[in-house]
Amino acid sequence: MHYKQLQKISGAANDARSGDRAKGGRELHALGRHLLVELHGCHPDTLKKVDVVKDILVGAARACGATIVDVAFHEFNPFGVSGVVVIAESHLSIHTWPEYRYAAVDIFTCGDVIKPERAVSYVASRFRCKAPSVVEMKRGLIPGMTGKLPHKVAIDEKLGEAVADAAQELSLVH
Amino acid sequence: MHYKQLQKISGAANDARSGDRAKGGRELHALGRHLLVELHGCHPDTLKKVDVVKDILVGAARACGATIVDVAFHEFNPFGVSGVVVIAESHLSIHTWPEYRYAAVDIFTCGDVIKPERAVSYVASRFRCKAPSVVEMKRGLIPGMTGKLPHKVAIDEKLGEAVADAAQELSLVH
Repeated sequence: MHYKQLQKISGAANDARSGDRAKGGRELHALGRHLLVELHGCHPDTLKKVDVVKDILVGAARACGATIVDVAFHEFNPFGVSGVVVIAESHLSIHTWPEYRYAAVDIFTCGDVIKPERAVSYVASRFRCKAPSVVEMKRGLIPGMTGKLPHKVAIDEKLGEAVADAAQELSLVH
Repeated sequence: MHYKQLQKISGAANDARSGDRAKGGRELHALGRHLLVELHGCHPDTLKKVDVVKDILVGAARACGATIVDVAFHEFNPFGVSGVVVIAESHLSIHTWPEYRYAAVDIFTCGDVIKPERAVSYVASRFRCKAPSVVEMKRGLIPGMTGKLPHKVAIDEKLGEAVADAAQELSLVH
């Protein structure tokens, strides 16, 4: 797997060479991790049908331990599926181009519990992509923020599953 | 606005300095543009309520000329909204942290018609963010692909709007 880690720090705090420490010694903590996954060379049959693509992205959300809140998938004629799995810890999205054997997948997570790398491995395997390429962006770098980050944990209304989580700090309103 | 353009090219074709031309002279054409927008210093009242955040992201989709296919938004207790607008040309997503006056917005578009920069200006204005920071990633760089890129244009079932587009090449199945 080709993996690149980039940092997204806005304004004067931008110093990609300094890790999570900005100029002047202030520590920066990211609210989220955003993995941009390029899947080239996929099996085209896996990219065409909305039910298959939805099953794979929902499976990826489960594989990384996410709490599914909502799903929205659409298939287009003659080619392609677009879809999103909203999770309590942010979202997974996908857009497929079967004609190019290509899918663009995003995995945006917050909190320490979720392991987005597992979702990458899962989608690469299901789409039969041998060489997934991943860029990681840090999102929401807040100067001076310390300690464990809260993440949204929810009751999955749509799928009718009650989700229990001992670390629950937030609950779904709508 | 702080704007940075990065390129996402997988494997051996990766050469960010060479523009859209990979090593060896092959031309690369991206299927999509992906803008990662960091909004710090927002007015917290604009980040708290699902109806407000949904209205802003749907407005952003319209501002850039996108065709809305689906929306999925959720509000969490005590803080935060997550939501996605699936568009025929890919998607817009948002996650808000009112306690940090911060929102992470993604605008993923394909095709030449959509102007995602307009969506960036729109969300920054509505959230009262004075200094949005944007990183652009090219998604789906396909060696040798030439000509105008097809994009998905759809009938918006959910909102009951029939969308006409002379450049229509794809239509919604599900």
